[in-house]
Amino acid sequence: MTTTRQRILRTSLDLFNRHGERNVSTNHIADALGISPGNLYYHFRNKGEIIAELFDGYAAQVIGFLTLPEDRTMTWADKTGYFESILDSMWAARFLHRDLGHLLNQDDRLRDRYVSFVDHSLQRGFDVYCGMRAAGLVEGDDATLRGLLMNTWVLATSWASFVHSLVPPARQSEALDRDLLSQGVYQILCLETPYLRGESLERLGEVIARYQVDGQDSMSLLFGLIRQ
Amino acid sequence: MTTTRQRILRTSLDLFNRHGERNVSTNHIADALGISPGNLYYHFRNKGEIIAELFDGYAAQVIGFLTLPEDRTMTWADKTGYFESILDSMWAARFLHRDLGHLLNQDDRLRDRYVSFVDHSLQRGFDVYCGMRAAGLVEGDDATLRGLLMNTWVLATSWASFVHSLVPPARQSEALDRDLLSQGVYQILCLETPYLRGESLERLGEVIARYQVDGQDSMSLLFGLIRQ
Repeated sequence: MTTTRQRILRTSLDLFNRHGERNVSTNHIADALGISPGNLYYHFRNKGEIIAELFDGYAAQVIGFLTLPEDRTMTWADKTGYFESILDSMWAARFLHRDLGHLLNQDDRLRDRYVSFVDHSLQRGFDVYCGMRAAGLVEGDDATLRGLLMNTWVLATSWASFVHSLVPPARQSEALDRDLLSQGVYQILCLETPYLRGESLERLGEVIARYQVDGQDSMSLLFGLIRQ
Repeated sequence: MTTTRQRILRTSLDLFNRHGERNVSTNHIADALGISPGNLYYHFRNKGEIIAELFDGYAAQVIGFLTLPEDRTMTWADKTGYFESILDSMWAARFLHRDLGHLLNQDDRLRDRYVSFVDHSLQRGFDVYCGMRAAGLVEGDDATLRGLLMNTWVLATSWASFVHSLVPPARQSEALDRDLLSQGVYQILCLETPYLRGESLERLGEVIARYQVDGQDSMSLLFGLIRQ
């Protein structure tokens, strides 16, 4: 059974993702659910509490999938699984990354949770890269893998806000956002390419074909869309 | 002679960079200059006009340095010069990149100018990479260089806002921001490393030593600072 609390969270997430968190008030959320603002405030004192709970859900999801397989070597399929999970989790909470600076500026406790989340994710991410190295899927010394991981993190978390800032509001759509996010995975693949080995190198073409939109590089894709 | 208009721009830039554009009003700017708000409004109708003019100055500066040397092959010194220029221009207008989404959301004309600027910069950036390739300083086919350039752009323009979002306000300082920006150049070097050839590869250690803060990788540096 879905509780009112869960319905509020789900609807808020949907509205934030569609319209941007700044453009959605608690009244909009109550309206969309057909409940009174008073009922909403019974569950969440303000919008900040809704955002904090959505953030915690997102963070738990990311930390959850950044784990190494137990009692066996990592495979190419595991590596692909991380990509799929990154894409899905970023899509599900895309409002967060589009406007993160704003959200963190408003709420010091959210910033503390975010810092712990980044710290924790990067530690886990490094373990994952070391697991891939042990499995012969990537190559690089620790400093190289840490540099690569940091760049992957900044790219993955900044891409949505970068592309979103370029597309005029009149041209924005869910389908376009989804394509642009997929192209973001292609950009992560560009980052990783020089370090791939074994099966992850052999099957790179296949993975690129899955994520790159219309076989285009990102400059052509982006400016093609904007100039349309 | 410095005009009042120039003094307004210079003081606004300084205040925006120090305190963040959101925390600085036209009254603060007039106060800092010892002029009346009416005098300020005589030169700029609102804060948006000041931001737009500062943006144009920044954009002109970046486009200006993204040019190829005339009548000669590019050298390693040219390549280093691009880095210095990127670092200086980003530092001089750091308020822009810390809160870009917010600024563009507020002003559609600024968004149009920003899109043209990104488009123009990426075209020029590609010419620069092709110049480096012709000079034997980097290696990669066009698709590879375009992927690398896009990642460099996103990293360079997102790094300041990424690190800024992690550091608690009480810990922020100009010296820290400057160090973190320098470490951002180290992250760009990590991106480029696999593609460097000739002198740019031979002298990589020297360049890393110049930008990497305390010889640390960025994860260690960042979380060391935050946990202090």
